[in-house]
Amino acid sequence: MKARVHVMLKDGVLDPQGEAVRHALGSLGFEGVDKVRQGKVIELDLADGTPEETVREMCEKLLANTVIERFDIELV
Amino acid sequence: MKARVHVMLKDGVLDPQGEAVRHALGSLGFEGVDKVRQGKVIELDLADGTPEETVREMCEKLLANTVIERFDIELV
Repeated sequence: MKARVHVMLKDGVLDPQGEAVRHALGSLGFEGVDKVRQGKVIELDLADGTPEETVREMCEKLLANTVIERFDIELV
Repeated sequence: MKARVHVMLKDGVLDPQGEAVRHALGSLGFEGVDKVRQGKVIELDLADGTPEETVREMCEKLLANTVIERFDIELV
């Protein structure tokens, strides 16, 4: 089975990467780009039957810094 | 409107970040983690009515390195 985890900075946490992308898109002539947030996506190939709870534990222990990041899990 | 872009390394391209995550999960005692790929997710706030074609152009010009990365676009 596969799990896909999205890790994004929490709202209110400054995102310099996203800000750099927004600025660069403007420089390239793309208009109407209001806000950009950049995060990580992690695709995991797991043993069949791995519960979502285990994936949550992986996120809390390693994949996300829960002080400044939120994550969501999608089992595929 | 919002667009969400996923950028992942193409299959066959070595992913040292993903490999490091796989190894770290093993060290933490998580078993059955077979393969890990790490990519980027970019959330864009765009002017209403921006066509997907424009977002595709953003990906090709800036967000993804299409030599080694593939991207997919989701309009929300």
